[in-house]
Amino acid sequence: MDVHIDRESTVPIYLQISGGIKELILAGKLPEGFRLPPERRLARSLGVNRSTVLAAYRELKADALVDAHVGRGTAVLPRHFAPEPMGPTQPIPWRQLAREDGPKAQDPLVRDLLQLTERPDIISLSVGLPAAELLPLDAVRRAMSALLEEVGAPLLLHCPTEGTTSFRETIAGMLVTRGIRCTAGEVLITSGSQQGLDLAARAFVEPGDAVVVEEPSFFGALQAFRRAPARLLGVPVDGEGMRTDVLESLLARHRPKLIYSLPTFQNPSGTVMSLERRRHLLDLAYRFQVPIVEDDPYGELRYDGPALPSLAALDEHGYVMYLSSFSKVLFPGMRVGFMVAPRPALRQLALAKQAMDLHSTTAGQHLIERLIRDGHYSRHLKTVRAEYRRRRDLMDEALHAHAPDGVSWSKPDGGFYFWCRFPNAIPQAQLLARAAESRVSYLPGDACFADEPSDNYLRLNFTYPLPDAIGEGVERLMNAVRAAASRPRRGGNGGGTPPIV
Amino acid sequence: MDVHIDRESTVPIYLQISGGIKELILAGKLPEGFRLPPERRLARSLGVNRSTVLAAYRELKADALVDAHVGRGTAVLPRHFAPEPMGPTQPIPWRQLAREDGPKAQDPLVRDLLQLTERPDIISLSVGLPAAELLPLDAVRRAMSALLEEVGAPLLLHCPTEGTTSFRETIAGMLVTRGIRCTAGEVLITSGSQQGLDLAARAFVEPGDAVVVEEPSFFGALQAFRRAPARLLGVPVDGEGMRTDVLESLLARHRPKLIYSLPTFQNPSGTVMSLERRRHLLDLAYRFQVPIVEDDPYGELRYDGPALPSLAALDEHGYVMYLSSFSKVLFPGMRVGFMVAPRPALRQLALAKQAMDLHSTTAGQHLIERLIRDGHYSRHLKTVRAEYRRRRDLMDEALHAHAPDGVSWSKPDGGFYFWCRFPNAIPQAQLLARAAESRVSYLPGDACFADEPSDNYLRLNFTYPLPDAIGEGVERLMNAVRAAASRPRRGGNGGGTPPIV
Repeated sequence: MDVHIDRESTVPIYLQISGGIKELILAGKLPEGFRLPPERRLARSLGVNRSTVLAAYRELKADALVDAHVGRGTAVLPRHFAPEPMGPTQPIPWRQLAREDGPKAQDPLVRDLLQLTERPDIISLSVGLPAAELLPLDAVRRAMSALLEEVGAPLLLHCPTEGTTSFRETIAGMLVTRGIRCTAGEVLITSGSQQGLDLAARAFVEPGDAVVVEEPSFFGALQAFRRAPARLLGVPVDGEGMRTDVLESLLARHRPKLIYSLPTFQNPSGTVMSLERRRHLLDLAYRFQVPIVEDDPYGELRYDGPALPSLAALDEHGYVMYLSSFSKVLFPGMRVGFMVAPRPALRQLALAKQAMDLHSTTAGQHLIERLIRDGHYSRHLKTVRAEYRRRRDLMDEALHAHAPDGVSWSKPDGGFYFWCRFPNAIPQAQLLARAAESRVSYLPGDACFADEPSDNYLRLNFTYPLPDAIGEGVERLMNAVRAAASRPRRGGNGGGTPPIV
Repeated sequence: MDVHIDRESTVPIYLQISGGIKELILAGKLPEGFRLPPERRLARSLGVNRSTVLAAYRELKADALVDAHVGRGTAVLPRHFAPEPMGPTQPIPWRQLAREDGPKAQDPLVRDLLQLTERPDIISLSVGLPAAELLPLDAVRRAMSALLEEVGAPLLLHCPTEGTTSFRETIAGMLVTRGIRCTAGEVLITSGSQQGLDLAARAFVEPGDAVVVEEPSFFGALQAFRRAPARLLGVPVDGEGMRTDVLESLLARHRPKLIYSLPTFQNPSGTVMSLERRRHLLDLAYRFQVPIVEDDPYGELRYDGPALPSLAALDEHGYVMYLSSFSKVLFPGMRVGFMVAPRPALRQLALAKQAMDLHSTTAGQHLIERLIRDGHYSRHLKTVRAEYRRRRDLMDEALHAHAPDGVSWSKPDGGFYFWCRFPNAIPQAQLLARAAESRVSYLPGDACFADEPSDNYLRLNFTYPLPDAIGEGVERLMNAVRAAASRPRRGGNGGGTPPIV
């Protein structure tokens, strides 16, 4: 048995011995049943202490490569799963091989919706996109040309996992207007806001941990937490935001790992959490020592009502990880968002991000930094705010004109969505199919709940459709609701759980 | 006790009842010890069957909200974790809260190295970057301008999770020249190659699963698999690539979930797996039904030697998930890579990707597609291939001129790296510090091993440093080796495990 020892190496001798023997076994040079030399003899022949060989053999036992019996010495174990002689090659059962991370059936929803919106004959009220015709194409072209000229190669090379220093500084500066005081070192650039959610889940949620979510909530967040996989604890949302009275009992009972909240222009309900509830939420988080993930992609898109401070702005003890995005105000296609978190939290998030995608697009970071620094971002925000306010009013009017009895909604003060309740007698799947026949798409409310909801909802986006299409889309949809209500397709495959959930 | 039932709802009645009671309990409206009405009575008052109420109570019991005792009925349980009255708010122990996913200490390595390369006085031989001065800045500017003009808004909007259809078609077409036949439906666009590794881990590796890796291997892959968290099974690499004889024993013993291999211009060793080994690897995968993740970022950067078919090109049974990247030939800063996988595997990967970042940068996909379609990619490949061959030769000459006895290496036929062995007597940490003093950086070999390596290696990149810097960098480094060898700093903090691993 040929084992080589290098006394100059920084690798401990016992690991060199066990490594050498391991390699011999795995290469088949020490067959099953082969007796390793007694410890004392091997120690003598290698010129090491017996305890060193003992430690090496212990390693091999831990690897299930050898076993020792009193009186019989240490012998190489048999291969446990000797395969049969080779038959015809079997295909890989990929689906069975996949991780079991929660309900698979619901996941393709977003992808299917994104595909629907590509059909030109469909009026899309489903996805949360900014107005395509307002996208700042000229500003982007000018900025990219200037950047390639002035910044040059670094634009196309790697940057730190956390993001470029100057972009992080720019964001820290921008956040002062949102009442959030942070340093560049507390900013992490993400590949869109969705990655921020996924990072929070991957850095902090262990399988089986509980995570508090609002009911309803952003489906992309539910998806990210479900894949952790976390147990989702739903807290209902009413007109003042998350029901913090219910939250308190849940915190006491389940000791969750995170609380996820969208306090401002909540997706999908459009609700703004009251200042009192914001304070109560923070107090509860402090009392039970549970960090909060605050998601704020829509905060700057306010059309009415007073501005309320974000949880991050109110937080005095470093409990909030704040997420935001450029996807709603500027554009989503570059995949650039950001998080603000206390430094020790940020470090964990950056470690997770490094293994995920090294860093977010360098060119995209420079581009958005420039749009902020040259004032284009602020000007653009004013433009889209005015236009989206107008579209929101158009949708509200269209709903008043076309919604049948039994459909109810509130006009949101900001954000991207109307959240409409419709009669429970209409199965979601049936309405979805009828709406597709009528060439209009929406997001079924069921996708936004952690538990099965007791009511029927649909989410309507008013920022992406052109003003003319808003009235037409709402009319088509409400006709579909009316048709489904008057001629419910019961029996057959109807009733029971709709396939989309 | 006020429980509302909606008979028109698609939600089963028993879930409506349990949901209503659950909400009352969590809101504190039914205090600890409160007796729920006997099933028969509640059934009568709600006008439902007793079995329905029974099912509702069972739900509540399963949620640990109530408990039932014969003779005493069903009562609300106490809160288990009633917190103490509020004291001063404690800071969140973020590090303790983080998931335990493997060795934390090693992870920051890449980030630290990326930071080192930002120092202008350091000659960086450490990171795997393309030559900055060869980046196609003009071509990028022209392409972006044309795209903003011709494609317009869709450039900045969402695209399907799998990538834009036309880019996927372009890649499928491009792969014909690599001998890989696939359809656009088998291509998934990733946010860099690192994300492809992470996706394979997240879609298919459950905690505790074993994954076979080469020893040495790409440290970013080790990192992604470690975070799964997977058990890594190392198979040594020799001059012909992965030791498939050792692999066979490992497959029999451990039934791993995946085999990860870089068969062509392996990172870090530069090795090319022989055709015989490639065939043997595939045969073993078929026999033990283990899918292969083939990582091929360097395959097109061949300077000498014959071209060998990739595993994906040889695979006849859909066992290979093939990963590649534009980071090495074009630029890494846009974060665009791709995977090719059988459709059922691709579906699982796309589901994982959707929860991670929705999709990769739309603008970046269009940009690279255009560079491929207009022939720029092929022309650029010719340019960098010629230049990198020259730099490889320069590094080989510099090593011959400056390396002391005890340092050994092979001249690689392609790729980005020299893999040098240096005397085991020199602790890695000490050499790293001495090299930094001498203003030269390299990648310590230890980072590339799943297990503690028995030999000392360092990886040197020859594509990023300017030709003049290659000789100077190698000379500085070899002087550091010589100094460390002649005056090893033993004692003190020396010896034992260097802190970098």
